[in-house]
Amino acid sequence: MPYELLVEVTRNGIVESRHFGAAVVCDYKGDVLESWGDIDNLVFPRSALKPLLAIDVVQSGASDHYALGDAELSLMCASHQGEEMHEKKVGGWLKRLGLNPDYLACGAVLPDDRENAHKLIASGQNGCRLHHNCSGKHAGFLTTALHLNMPLKDYHLAEHPVQRLSLATLSNLAGTDLSQYPSGIDGCGFPALTMPLLCLARIMARFSNPEKLSGPHTKAIFRLHEAITREPYYTAGHGTVVSDLIQVTKGKVLAKTGAEGIMTAALPKQGLGIALKISDGSARARSVALLAILDHLGILSDSEKRQLETHISPHLKNSRDLIVGDIRPAQSWISA
Amino acid sequence: MPYELLVEVTRNGIVESRHFGAAVVCDYKGDVLESWGDIDNLVFPRSALKPLLAIDVVQSGASDHYALGDAELSLMCASHQGEEMHEKKVGGWLKRLGLNPDYLACGAVLPDDRENAHKLIASGQNGCRLHHNCSGKHAGFLTTALHLNMPLKDYHLAEHPVQRLSLATLSNLAGTDLSQYPSGIDGCGFPALTMPLLCLARIMARFSNPEKLSGPHTKAIFRLHEAITREPYYTAGHGTVVSDLIQVTKGKVLAKTGAEGIMTAALPKQGLGIALKISDGSARARSVALLAILDHLGILSDSEKRQLETHISPHLKNSRDLIVGDIRPAQSWISA
Repeated sequence: MPYELLVEVTRNGIVESRHFGAAVVCDYKGDVLESWGDIDNLVFPRSALKPLLAIDVVQSGASDHYALGDAELSLMCASHQGEEMHEKKVGGWLKRLGLNPDYLACGAVLPDDRENAHKLIASGQNGCRLHHNCSGKHAGFLTTALHLNMPLKDYHLAEHPVQRLSLATLSNLAGTDLSQYPSGIDGCGFPALTMPLLCLARIMARFSNPEKLSGPHTKAIFRLHEAITREPYYTAGHGTVVSDLIQVTKGKVLAKTGAEGIMTAALPKQGLGIALKISDGSARARSVALLAILDHLGILSDSEKRQLETHISPHLKNSRDLIVGDIRPAQSWISA
Repeated sequence: MPYELLVEVTRNGIVESRHFGAAVVCDYKGDVLESWGDIDNLVFPRSALKPLLAIDVVQSGASDHYALGDAELSLMCASHQGEEMHEKKVGGWLKRLGLNPDYLACGAVLPDDRENAHKLIASGQNGCRLHHNCSGKHAGFLTTALHLNMPLKDYHLAEHPVQRLSLATLSNLAGTDLSQYPSGIDGCGFPALTMPLLCLARIMARFSNPEKLSGPHTKAIFRLHEAITREPYYTAGHGTVVSDLIQVTKGKVLAKTGAEGIMTAALPKQGLGIALKISDGSARARSVALLAILDHLGILSDSEKRQLETHISPHLKNSRDLIVGDIRPAQSWISA
């Protein structure tokens, strides 16, 4: 069994559903501090790589050249919810580049944000490419490609030079050539890399403390820390665990989600990286598991825990608005 | 480990996510033919009990008295999607009873059916109680209560006589007193019973072949078979695995979903019942697992399998409408 029981969903105190997963905490030297399940298993990090994919836009000088602010850089690291503020910011950014949403390679979708989705539907509109949770990442890749005089066409395909650049950057952080692992296609058309879960945690640990990195990444990564911490609601959205964690901890925990049950965090103060995979791909379990690990490591203060209460052990309500159950770390697993 | 690996989600042929679960096939005598994982584990059957909860409305004479047709009986067994045809049928039924949607104890929700939900949003409306997937079950309980001169108030609470009646019916089918097990509250306000997974399969087996049942349930159950088979799209909806399975197999497989990864089937020709639980509560895995078991048992013809192809191993498409992966029975699990 490559997974351990991490999260339980209860109804009236009785366990109704169980989520299994693997998780690992390691330091910027790459050493494992603690782990659960098989951490050598290949995972698709999916959107958890976005903060790492944002390094090149800063390092290449594209970010300065096009005067990207904190919000744009935060959006490059984001799986945003497609709130109106996200949509507008990416739209304005593209305009400044002399481009429009048709340049984005991601598909048009209704935003995840319910309010904005309903507003669009009510006015007879469909979602557009700006609403895709990856639109900031796509705008960032276009920015880098423009600045480096690369063709804009097919910037989402693995063989495009801007993708090769980002694979090299990722491999540098990973300390290993990531092209050795198989890959697929992501929801937005980008390559979907695979790597061992431990490798993902190592990348996050090196992102958390870039001072020890060889190469020119250090400054770019510190700039991203700053941008995400200043504009946490551009890197996910209101009510999300990612934005709330960054906001409440003032950047002490830089969390990121990936589709199919992936969750990561970089802890700049401690120089630690965390990566976890919920085997079944569940979104509800990954954040509860991450918060349990953070609590176990003693990262969160009592005040921070109070502010994050609804994420630490969310209540389940029924259609009559009654609390009928909870999502909690498995009782057989870690405790603080 | 009380669960086995049942379903895999792949991306470019590489396994990205894994769903674990338990499943059991038994006959109407209660004997286990085959099982996977721990089948004595307590589960919440949730909506999988609806076809059983519909027995009393027929047996009590309420169904004849109020001239319920196939569609209404199918809706009583349904977790419907809230399509316009579902909403209208339940609305008309309540009207015939001299009631209105306010009598339903379930909460008001937007329908699961995307088309109907968007139509409501576009016209500035919220969903109502008729759109709740359980509205047919609620209308059925109101019908029985009216016919038996029970109070309508609090018909959703465990201590109400109409709930006690249905618990007795369920216990008769289970061959054991179900009040021995703990319970919670369901999404619609009804009691959410628990029972061992095997017990749920036994109930389904006895529902599949009611001729051997002691007691007066046989005729009512045959009437429900007939109604569901004639009106399969009222018992779930268009595009759902439940309705498509019943339609394609012409009632050879009476499938039913329950929230949090529950799936059941009654096979009237064979006198078999199937119950399975996906540990993590996933909806995408439960139907793939059921279809794998049906195929393993040799229940489906080649023609039926062709018609059910999109449910047997669904493709995953990305926002660019590319096929990027599949959901399939785990390769280590059963094959036909």
